[in-house]
Amino acid sequence: MSQGQKLSFATDYMEGAHPLILRRLTETNMEKTPGYGVDNFSESARNRIREACHTPLADIFFLAGGTQTNAVMIDSILRPYQGVIAAESGHISVHEAGAIEYGGHKVLALPQHEGKLSAKIIRECLEKYWQDSNREHMVMPGMVYISHPTECGTLYSLKELREISEVCRSNHIPLYLDGARLCYAFGCPENDVSLPDIASLCDAFYIGGTKCGALFGEAIVVPKHDFIPHLFTIIKQHGALLAKGRIAGIQFDTLFTDDLYYKIGKTAIEAADRIRKALREKGYSLAFPSPTNQIFVCLDKEQYARLSNEVEMDFWEKTDDSHVILRIATSWATQSEDVDRLIRLL
Amino acid sequence: MSQGQKLSFATDYMEGAHPLILRRLTETNMEKTPGYGVDNFSESARNRIREACHTPLADIFFLAGGTQTNAVMIDSILRPYQGVIAAESGHISVHEAGAIEYGGHKVLALPQHEGKLSAKIIRECLEKYWQDSNREHMVMPGMVYISHPTECGTLYSLKELREISEVCRSNHIPLYLDGARLCYAFGCPENDVSLPDIASLCDAFYIGGTKCGALFGEAIVVPKHDFIPHLFTIIKQHGALLAKGRIAGIQFDTLFTDDLYYKIGKTAIEAADRIRKALREKGYSLAFPSPTNQIFVCLDKEQYARLSNEVEMDFWEKTDDSHVILRIATSWATQSEDVDRLIRLL
Amino acid sequence: MSQGQKLSFATDYMEGAHPLILRRLTETNMEKTPGYGVDNFSESARNRIREACHTPLADIFFLAGGTQTNAVMIDSILRPYQGVIAAESGHISVHEAGAIEYGGHKVLALPQHEGKLSAKIIRECLEKYWQDSNREHMVMPGMVYISHPTECGTLYSLKELREISEVCRSNHIPLYLDGARLCYAFGCPENDVSLPDIASLCDAFYIGGTKCGALFGEAIVVPKHDFIPHLFTIIKQHGALLAKGRIAGIQFDTLFTDDLYYKIGKTAIEAADRIRKALREKGYSLAFPSPTNQIFVCLDKEQYARLSNEVEMDFWEKTDDSHVILRIATSWATQSEDVDRLIRLL
Amino acid sequence: MSQGQKLSFATDYMEGAHPLILRRLTETNMEKTPGYGVDNFSESARNRIREACHTPLADIFFLAGGTQTNAVMIDSILRPYQGVIAAESGHISVHEAGAIEYGGHKVLALPQHEGKLSAKIIRECLEKYWQDSNREHMVMPGMVYISHPTECGTLYSLKELREISEVCRSNHIPLYLDGARLCYAFGCPENDVSLPDIASLCDAFYIGGTKCGALFGEAIVVPKHDFIPHLFTIIKQHGALLAKGRIAGIQFDTLFTDDLYYKIGKTAIEAADRIRKALREKGYSLAFPSPTNQIFVCLDKEQYARLSNEVEMDFWEKTDDSHVILRIATSWATQSEDVDRLIRLL
Repeated sequence: MSQGQKLSFATDYMEGAHPLILRRLTETNMEKTPGYGVDNFSESARNRIREACHTPLADIFFLAGGTQTNAVMIDSILRPYQGVIAAESGHISVHEAGAIEYGGHKVLALPQHEGKLSAKIIRECLEKYWQDSNREHMVMPGMVYISHPTECGTLYSLKELREISEVCRSNHIPLYLDGARLCYAFGCPENDVSLPDIASLCDAFYIGGTKCGALFGEAIVVPKHDFIPHLFTIIKQHGALLAKGRIAGIQFDTLFTDDLYYKIGKTAIEAADRIRKALREKGYSLAFPSPTNQIFVCLDKEQYARLSNEVEMDFWEKTDDSHVILRIATSWATQSEDVDRLIRLL
Repeated sequence: MSQGQKLSFATDYMEGAHPLILRRLTETNMEKTPGYGVDNFSESARNRIREACHTPLADIFFLAGGTQTNAVMIDSILRPYQGVIAAESGHISVHEAGAIEYGGHKVLALPQHEGKLSAKIIRECLEKYWQDSNREHMVMPGMVYISHPTECGTLYSLKELREISEVCRSNHIPLYLDGARLCYAFGCPENDVSLPDIASLCDAFYIGGTKCGALFGEAIVVPKHDFIPHLFTIIKQHGALLAKGRIAGIQFDTLFTDDLYYKIGKTAIEAADRIRKALREKGYSLAFPSPTNQIFVCLDKEQYARLSNEVEMDFWEKTDDSHVILRIATSWATQSEDVDRLIRLL
Repeated sequence: MSQGQKLSFATDYMEGAHPLILRRLTETNMEKTPGYGVDNFSESARNRIREACHTPLADIFFLAGGTQTNAVMIDSILRPYQGVIAAESGHISVHEAGAIEYGGHKVLALPQHEGKLSAKIIRECLEKYWQDSNREHMVMPGMVYISHPTECGTLYSLKELREISEVCRSNHIPLYLDGARLCYAFGCPENDVSLPDIASLCDAFYIGGTKCGALFGEAIVVPKHDFIPHLFTIIKQHGALLAKGRIAGIQFDTLFTDDLYYKIGKTAIEAADRIRKALREKGYSLAFPSPTNQIFVCLDKEQYARLSNEVEMDFWEKTDDSHVILRIATSWATQSEDVDRLIRLL
Repeated sequence: MSQGQKLSFATDYMEGAHPLILRRLTETNMEKTPGYGVDNFSESARNRIREACHTPLADIFFLAGGTQTNAVMIDSILRPYQGVIAAESGHISVHEAGAIEYGGHKVLALPQHEGKLSAKIIRECLEKYWQDSNREHMVMPGMVYISHPTECGTLYSLKELREISEVCRSNHIPLYLDGARLCYAFGCPENDVSLPDIASLCDAFYIGGTKCGALFGEAIVVPKHDFIPHLFTIIKQHGALLAKGRIAGIQFDTLFTDDLYYKIGKTAIEAADRIRKALREKGYSLAFPSPTNQIFVCLDKEQYARLSNEVEMDFWEKTDDSHVILRIATSWATQSEDVDRLIRLL
């Protein structure tokens, strides 16, 4: 229940953590471990993730949040004269308060479709750069950033991800995937991209925890060992090294035990599917064909006034003077009776 | 008990969190709150801290770790052409992997005595700068960084802190205090510096949580409202904004309920005092006159070999070919029987 | 004559300096002066520029080049969490190799028309930012960058510049004008924007030398004294402080003696006007209605092949498979007989 | 003659340029060349320098000033988590307004003797870092910066330079030499370090022009081709790319024609030697055993008052309440009669 007592579907990080995580933190609380991620809990978590990704040699680090993780990874992958290709709607392009530019790099924002970049548009950007006679006066595209699910709740198909990966590899630039909400991709029947697929097609990515059942935490995965030398020190330099690394380690160890990470996603998607079905049946239109835990619904003024009185949703954008888009998000914590209540209110 | 089963006094962040914190996280787990620190838990924590500091209008933010907090505060206080004065032994001078320089600022390292800067040495540095005819080609000292307790476990007296504050104010440069281990100052009978003293003498500081009983977390306090405009966005830009701000808020709310923060310090200092007494009685010499939870003991080769076999301590430095300094740290979590065992081993 | 012996209209910085500048450098060569711009030549140049701008108290600095000047000014005007609004086609957006991002700032690129921003589009950008409920997670627009003439050779009218200035002032953000080719604006009959207009409507700007008859050099003008504190040190920190400041000072002193700066512009525009007239008469179409020293002419494949064989022009862009845009630039150094030859070749 | 009509030995960059440079600029003034250093003058200068260095494949770039050159080179050689070792008295440590930190890197300042680092002290610094168990939390030493002549006017012997180079190579870190006043080393009989020596022992260096007879300009030499990939773009990103690259190219082409660079040094050293001889004969003491064009003379109050009334010298430092050190500098432009006058005044 929200602090304001109103039904709330505003976001997927409104509660604390999945109860199994809290239980595990409590059980292990008084064990003594060394700091900075070299403890046994973190090592166990790393091994579970390596196994889940089919990457026995992957370098894995646990950080506290997504913007931090993106900044660390982009800064450590790019050379100073390079920029990162991203969708105009990408989190790093819009909602990270200039964290990438703070690290000295330009975000080379490309047009997106429903939150996604295409292999074609990336290829054209690279060709344009390499054919430009003034390119030595320009920012060199040095890597590609995508998110899965995207900021619009949409998913790349395996085919699309393969095509993007192929463009990157043939142009010798790394592909990095922001998986802040990755569990909600894995919970979708429509999703055909697995963790091993991501690990084999991307050069680096992160598995989101904060929005996927953890108190906080994101797991960086670099499939090829030492692809980024001295990443530990770069993390420290960015102020992103957790002193009690175990706290993140225990959480990811729990998330990757008994498929908890996948179960969390499934719960959220089932709730979202029920809401989507009800919205369609009641004649609402959706802004993006999102199959994940984020639903973007178009409302007219009257609907907006009525619903927002009863339900907290996230204001997305005003489309014209009489219509708005609102985001409804489910999560591992969404209660069935809250979904029922919401559906009755629609 | 340490994972390695050995008696461990290596550091003050080997366990999880004070049990009251875990209990509170568990009790509140399913409440829904908005993100980014605007929840009621964080607001309650801010109010408790404002009260404890006697600063009803203070701006307060909760971040995940110390290096991050130092970087955010120093970057947000300094203008681009300014540097930060710190002790040569200061955490930002040595052990933050260049986080301050990453933000574009020089650390102006001054000689220290037992980890402390003096008002005199700061004044001389400022005078030297302002008298130098080439100063426009040099880095302008723009603020002063001190830590309390220091990295050597020592404490500033109220008189020393007042003198430093006076030098800063008469030179119009802010004073910033790193309180990573602040609870362990408050636990010392020798300490005569209170939170309201710090809040009135410093322009910004942080109250440490990670090393003082929290899972993680540091509370930035800026006594004068809006002294640092747009600090929220600067925190976001540094990747230091916690999505589930409540997790830090709940922890600090607990630490500042029923004097828990002070009790934690006291427990650790009592254990440290027992160890110090035993060390003195058995003829060991201490490297610094530290009254806090960190004890720096000088060992010869034989002592080092024998003790390090039984007890995990933190290697501090080699003083000559046959002597080393080791750090013994106690914390809120130190068990009385472990202290007994350690004393027997000395 | 070009080193390649071919007729060349490739750019406006192909020769050394206006002969009066070289003569003055030679005459004064053995005088001894202090460094870093405090010499009498630089002071005289500053006074002439102050007079030309009607800004007796302006702060004026001489730097070596345009990218450097833009980086220094934008870094010194913006706070770390702010970005700079610029046209998508602005020099800082495209052709400065990420110099602005290197300083930590996002270029907030807005759509342009013929190289120009409009007051309307700037106002909309600012309103959108200030109305966005997530704005604290976004880069705050902190200043506006325009160039006059623009990268497309077009000019702002006084009315347009006033409107932009009004938007900036009512939103309390500085307006900065890049005058790399300013002399060529002043040489146009169409131009109704004077130096005093610029100085009263902008918060900072630079008067270009490198492309306007100097060996090198740009004059920063900050009409309001100390609007940017410690700018000298910021210039030094950016590696942009000239040791022999006099070399730039003597050049600008010469450019602002006997209206040389204006005469230089006029010579170039008369040559450009002759070329434009011939192009129109021979049925060529122009890409932008540029009245300044840069002419952007659309060529089909056959025309391109024929002309580029005889004349060096600057390749601008490919518009479709059979058409390209080439830039023809005149300058203070353009010879009348070369214009005749070019016209015969069209 | 100084603008103030007083005899001036304040610095070595008080006049314009060596007359041969001005003549050459004038002769070539109306030739048309492409920008950004790809002109024939610059190519000729590069070839002359390659020949002088015995490095036929060296990458060579011409920049405007020393601080800029140091920043570009250090930023392009270091990885983000690395710092640069330099003498405490090094130009980058003290007098570049934090330009290196602005680029994100710590200057690891080591004790110096008469302005020089020793191989021993560099080796100890590296060993200390690599033996420190906390080194992953520290700034990694990533290169070594030395200046020759040093800021104290002293010279490394070939033996010393070889030892430093050997330490760097055995530790796989590049050695970079700041040659702002290199011509004045070559003019000293004591100097046994040649350009080919520097080119074979250093990984990058610059040959100073600004203080060695040019209007401005420094020539970066990277002996091994492509040791620094994309250096052109890095230079542009730092705002250090000269549009009319030819202006620097013509100057260095002239300096390296008919041994002008060496002759310039010789003239200055002969003047300095006459002054040094007179100082010694009259009982003055020198602060450093400098054989180059900078003389550091210790004066008591009375001497200081008397001499500074007649001669401009550079104030270096106050050594105690009644003594100061002043710098007397000669240059390519020092007139024999001015030396006579100075000697009479001593």
